[in-house]
Amino acid sequence: MNGPFSLPRRAPRKVTQPKVTLAHGGGGTAMRDLIEDVFLETFSGAGHAAPEDQARFDLSALAAQGDRLAFTTDAFVVDPLFFPGGDIGKLAVCGTINDLAVGGARPVALSCAVIIEEGLPLETLRAVVASMARTAAEAGVVIVTGDTKVVARGACDKLFLTTTGIGVVRTGLDVGIAKGRPGDVVLVNGLLGDHGAAILNARGDLALETPIESDCAPLHDLVATLIAAAPGIRMMRDATRGGVAAVLNELAEASGVGVRIRETDVPLRPEVNGFCEILGLDPLYLANEGKLVAVVPPEEAEAALAAVRAHLLGREAAIIGRLAAERPGRVVMETRFGGERIVDMLVGDQLPRIC
Amino acid sequence: MNGPFSLPRRAPRKVTQPKVTLAHGGGGTAMRDLIEDVFLETFSGAGHAAPEDQARFDLSALAAQGDRLAFTTDAFVVDPLFFPGGDIGKLAVCGTINDLAVGGARPVALSCAVIIEEGLPLETLRAVVASMARTAAEAGVVIVTGDTKVVARGACDKLFLTTTGIGVVRTGLDVGIAKGRPGDVVLVNGLLGDHGAAILNARGDLALETPIESDCAPLHDLVATLIAAAPGIRMMRDATRGGVAAVLNELAEASGVGVRIRETDVPLRPEVNGFCEILGLDPLYLANEGKLVAVVPPEEAEAALAAVRAHLLGREAAIIGRLAAERPGRVVMETRFGGERIVDMLVGDQLPRIC
Repeated sequence: MNGPFSLPRRAPRKVTQPKVTLAHGGGGTAMRDLIEDVFLETFSGAGHAAPEDQARFDLSALAAQGDRLAFTTDAFVVDPLFFPGGDIGKLAVCGTINDLAVGGARPVALSCAVIIEEGLPLETLRAVVASMARTAAEAGVVIVTGDTKVVARGACDKLFLTTTGIGVVRTGLDVGIAKGRPGDVVLVNGLLGDHGAAILNARGDLALETPIESDCAPLHDLVATLIAAAPGIRMMRDATRGGVAAVLNELAEASGVGVRIRETDVPLRPEVNGFCEILGLDPLYLANEGKLVAVVPPEEAEAALAAVRAHLLGREAAIIGRLAAERPGRVVMETRFGGERIVDMLVGDQLPRIC
Repeated sequence: MNGPFSLPRRAPRKVTQPKVTLAHGGGGTAMRDLIEDVFLETFSGAGHAAPEDQARFDLSALAAQGDRLAFTTDAFVVDPLFFPGGDIGKLAVCGTINDLAVGGARPVALSCAVIIEEGLPLETLRAVVASMARTAAEAGVVIVTGDTKVVARGACDKLFLTTTGIGVVRTGLDVGIAKGRPGDVVLVNGLLGDHGAAILNARGDLALETPIESDCAPLHDLVATLIAAAPGIRMMRDATRGGVAAVLNELAEASGVGVRIRETDVPLRPEVNGFCEILGLDPLYLANEGKLVAVVPPEEAEAALAAVRAHLLGREAAIIGRLAAERPGRVVMETRFGGERIVDMLVGDQLPRIC
């Protein structure tokens, strides 16, 4: 960690240039000023401890929270950087918190590596970092270490972030994509496709009267609620790239079960539904950034649904289907007209740089 | 970790396209094929376990190795991707191993997030991933989880990697940039500036007869040797961006000491020295990727030097100076002509995209 957040603390020198320059990634005083002024000050001002030289965690304190360490990483290249309901910073913090959470872990800390295009307005960088700090502080997670690289104009598009998270898996909890069994119930925590539709709408010129907001949110608290209500829970997965369709297909294959969902039970915002109809998109494939798919044993389904619905991030939760022994590896949807269709996995995504 | 290495295992489908497409980052079957064929097969074939769905580590097994978890991240944007002595993959694995090692930690595992430009030849990606796998296997470190994003042509330059590492800090070891004391001895493990010179030479048209090779190497084993020989060691730092000059300046400031080095004791390859003279560069500021600066108490200096010199990666190790109470915060070099000059921190680097 010769990187950003590892420098000795002192009164930071304010960065006064209006734009990021190559010198800000060069390992000299300019980089140091950028890190101290933009990153350290912001992260330490957001209600948690200042990132330290070499992030370290007491292993016995971690072991007191559970028996396994979870470790996960994601790169974020979303375009545009700011969109209704969020920005790349919020997305990067929520995305990694959610990966930890759906693995059954309580998030502990994040790292953040930043690749910046020369010429990015300082104001933009400050806004993204502030959003990261705010989101992390609200979620009770600390951003403890990081790195900053600056590349020449044209060598990257504005700003890319990579967040990596560590967390502690609850003792005794055993969730996984291969653990679904026939009879299990499939639940989602709310309206699907908002993030994908929000990004696409923010890019395009459809100019909806009411812009669709991304559902970008940290799900760790919702997950805690869900696990408490359904301790026999089989698996959770956040439905990001590839949407709910990708999660269900992975589930069907890994668990060797059929997945049967009902179109009329899939919760959709009318605007997103309309948007998809206009553009010929299928909302089941749209990315979400605050939605998870959970599989619970049938006897815990009602309790799980009630608990999730009582949570702020689960008010529109719904049971959308069940696992079956029939047609293993397949996801089948009963359509609103009484027919059936296979919900296959797409080859690619419906749109690039969605997260 | 909805990402790459988290998909269920099955016989991978070979990716036959010659180039990476946007679909390879889209969360569908194309992405899955890419991850399984290029990443999972390579990493699992390199002598260690296959990356799993949600990377998890037994906390009691970690605690048996030491009392603290170390956590560090770095982004890699080096240009060109391949250079004499290494490539971006080797660099990304060594860089994060070295960050862990100089913090006193034994490296345990890495994550890897990849941002790929549409159109990157598959062959290039395979070569980089194979290099990562080889380097990690040689170092006894596993790459356990990751993520893949693909951006449109022109939105990034070929390939960026971010590696994040976890490791366990040796119980009782207390090293840090602020721990230097007057009288302590400053040691480096070999010839300085090779990486910076290698990259610059690989880019330019100086066309040296013997190309300079990067010193890119994992330092964890050397660090273990050094700590065993000098248990009272104060600090270690790998001298990457900003070179030895940046490390010594941070040390001087954080420890509140003066750093005094002798030009004639600084180990330099004659080719690198000549290269620097031609281009007007100062080798003290050139990046290294297999060199560390260590500060040890005077009574352990000889043992430390002998131990490092006996290691394959430390044959040209040298004591280059001492810490002093005088001129705190300053790095002063006695020149070969008997004069003195201040080795200040640069504002930026001598060259961008060095790592």
